[in-house]
Amino acid sequence: MRRALAEAVREALRTGHLAPGTRLPSSRRLAADFGLARNTVADAYADLVSEGWLKARRGSGTLVADRMITRPVLARSATEPHGDPCHDLMPGKPDLAGFPRAAWLKATRRALAAAPDDALGYGDPRGRPELRAALADHLARARGVYASPEHILICAGVSHGLQILSGVLAGRGARNVAVESYGLDRHWGLLTDAGLKTLPLPFDTHGTDPVPPVGADAVLLTPAHQFPVGTALQRDRRTAAVDWAGRTGRLVLENDYDGEFRFARQSVGALQGLAPDRVVYVGTAGMTLAPGLRLAWMALPSTLVEEAVAVKGHIDSCEVFSQLTMAEFITSGAYGRHVRAARRRYRDRRDALVAALAQYAPQVRVIGTAAGLHTVLGLPTGTEERVLQSAAGQGLEVAGLSRYRHERSLNAMADALVVGYGVPSDAAWPQALSALVRILS
Amino acid sequence: MRRALAEAVREALRTGHLAPGTRLPSSRRLAADFGLARNTVADAYADLVSEGWLKARRGSGTLVADRMITRPVLARSATEPHGDPCHDLMPGKPDLAGFPRAAWLKATRRALAAAPDDALGYGDPRGRPELRAALADHLARARGVYASPEHILICAGVSHGLQILSGVLAGRGARNVAVESYGLDRHWGLLTDAGLKTLPLPFDTHGTDPVPPVGADAVLLTPAHQFPVGTALQRDRRTAAVDWAGRTGRLVLENDYDGEFRFARQSVGALQGLAPDRVVYVGTAGMTLAPGLRLAWMALPSTLVEEAVAVKGHIDSCEVFSQLTMAEFITSGAYGRHVRAARRRYRDRRDALVAALAQYAPQVRVIGTAAGLHTVLGLPTGTEERVLQSAAGQGLEVAGLSRYRHERSLNAMADALVVGYGVPSDAAWPQALSALVRILS
Repeated sequence: MRRALAEAVREALRTGHLAPGTRLPSSRRLAADFGLARNTVADAYADLVSEGWLKARRGSGTLVADRMITRPVLARSATEPHGDPCHDLMPGKPDLAGFPRAAWLKATRRALAAAPDDALGYGDPRGRPELRAALADHLARARGVYASPEHILICAGVSHGLQILSGVLAGRGARNVAVESYGLDRHWGLLTDAGLKTLPLPFDTHGTDPVPPVGADAVLLTPAHQFPVGTALQRDRRTAAVDWAGRTGRLVLENDYDGEFRFARQSVGALQGLAPDRVVYVGTAGMTLAPGLRLAWMALPSTLVEEAVAVKGHIDSCEVFSQLTMAEFITSGAYGRHVRAARRRYRDRRDALVAALAQYAPQVRVIGTAAGLHTVLGLPTGTEERVLQSAAGQGLEVAGLSRYRHERSLNAMADALVVGYGVPSDAAWPQALSALVRILS
Repeated sequence: MRRALAEAVREALRTGHLAPGTRLPSSRRLAADFGLARNTVADAYADLVSEGWLKARRGSGTLVADRMITRPVLARSATEPHGDPCHDLMPGKPDLAGFPRAAWLKATRRALAAAPDDALGYGDPRGRPELRAALADHLARARGVYASPEHILICAGVSHGLQILSGVLAGRGARNVAVESYGLDRHWGLLTDAGLKTLPLPFDTHGTDPVPPVGADAVLLTPAHQFPVGTALQRDRRTAAVDWAGRTGRLVLENDYDGEFRFARQSVGALQGLAPDRVVYVGTAGMTLAPGLRLAWMALPSTLVEEAVAVKGHIDSCEVFSQLTMAEFITSGAYGRHVRAARRRYRDRRDALVAALAQYAPQVRVIGTAAGLHTVLGLPTGTEERVLQSAAGQGLEVAGLSRYRHERSLNAMADALVVGYGVPSDAAWPQALSALVRILS
């Protein structure tokens, strides 16, 4: 009651209903009027006096303090989300309806029961040891990554990881980072925010040539599944990239954002396994589970750990329960089961897309390996813009390949669409596919 | 089997057991030797070839690729946690054994069941709307904070909040931030990291004089419970601080780190309620629940929201399930119940401390209001260092007041200990208290 009364008076003051200098009713009278205990009213008044809203004058009661209160404008900010299009076929987003809620909750229950008290405090800046141990084991098996838990750093998403790496590079005096000619400009932006310059690498019909020019201090690659083009880095170029790093003492930054989703029989392990002391591996739960978890990880060369920790900060900035839950999720086998089921579902979607195009739009060429949550569709020259407009007219959100081109790239790819098949629910997918085929046929 | 086999070969290559150029047994022979299907061996070889470990020569079988593999040094990092002292009486840390695990899990279950699918995706950079709405309501009632959900920004701890605010101030061309003469140097460090200079404010026997000198662009205060001194900002000085901000158009940054823990009958609301358009309110779940949640919040003047969002980043960097769980925890009333129970427990501890000192160490003066998770004990002049050494000898981790002094502070407080009573479990507290009294009596 005392708090409610104080808040009611504050509201009256804020909205200008009680002018400065106004004398308030005595606590005795207000108590009688509202049927409250007199102490309650006196306490509420005392609270407001000590907060500076009111002033008490001996002999003249309680007055509204002599100051102006301004009310903030409660405008809705420009960042308010707007309505969704009919079908979201943007790349880089998983099927959120497929998030394994029941299994995740079960893992949370177990993790909460097992966590020692001190796990809830300020944590090791590298992240929870349970998760780093689970990841070291899982990544070795699933991706051929070679790292001990001591060299794994948990971060709040791939962007956070790249931010940390940018800080480390800048701190070492690096100036230039070679990047693929096609990619995410918000990732390049993280590098430039740290004062680094991005140098786009050339590519040919076999994909990116990953050996950076003289002057590059590192190279950022998506070797298993180039984003967004979809090709895998060729065997001899994988070797060339790590050889460059070994020869020059520079670093390869490997963004393995969807490496667990490869549909062909032959899998491609992480580049990191070839040279753990020269390659930084970056992986994420954002594609296999959900971006909202803000959970990614890096396997660092041992010489980089201390610098990366210093950039991340003196305490772990990542939430502890999701880390403990993820550790339990991996070690119980639930993560493996979930990834296998998701892989089957995404593969089926891609197969349906390829089959539908072969039948109804045979002029469209499917580019890239059978992997991940998106594919690239080559279009007849000069039609990308028209196809995008026609897609927008159908309520289809889809990207043109040209938007991913680095502005200083020396060459350009032919017209193409980048189609993500991750977002639509199983129920919505057939309609989304029909709409896509309609605009392409 | 294929993966296990590939990993076994990788391990042999990494550790130098298979030299470059070595010819591997044919897949047929290896399959026969180990009782495997020949396809399994052939697939594993193909994986390793495509990863660059092996090379296949038509007619001469499979060879180890011609390159050196270095093994990272698996040294333990310098940040490895070390053994705890007998009793941790450092301030600023809550009782982690008191974390309400069962209630939190219940709230997680409900939050997971209720969350829409798109909550699991890339979120509004301000944080989940459910949590911002719950906080707007809760903070108004509990702390007299006046903010609509649109003006609340979720952040990963108070440090993250201060980092964001430092970025906003630096982006506006600010150069100097006035700070209290005693405080946390890691908070000051966040300001200086952004290129801002900290100007320590003078204080007198009534506490900090919060009106900044000419040239200050903002002032950072702990008005409800000065950290670490423990005094509350006086009534007329509360008013003076917001009047300064209103007159000069500058900002007050209010760090309300433990505002929910006040033990006296009279509560002090947030400064922010006096001038929501000039005061940034920063609150946290780190003291009421657990630092590991990495969950804090800011109530921003409407003119600051867009800039703060730009500094935080284009997506929400805070984990979604803890946000949804916290929203459910607040709206269900569980948070209020937990805070009241924790308040009673901390009050009892403080009462026991004060009573024990009165009886056994009457020369020790208790400084500051009855509030929060720590208190300051005034010592005879010149004894702080000796008392700290004697505490260390007893396995008691406790801080001297002098370590919190800003290096450019014009005046200095008398010798004192800063004693946190949050960390010990209920079972350990009586022993910790005895040990403390022993070194002081």
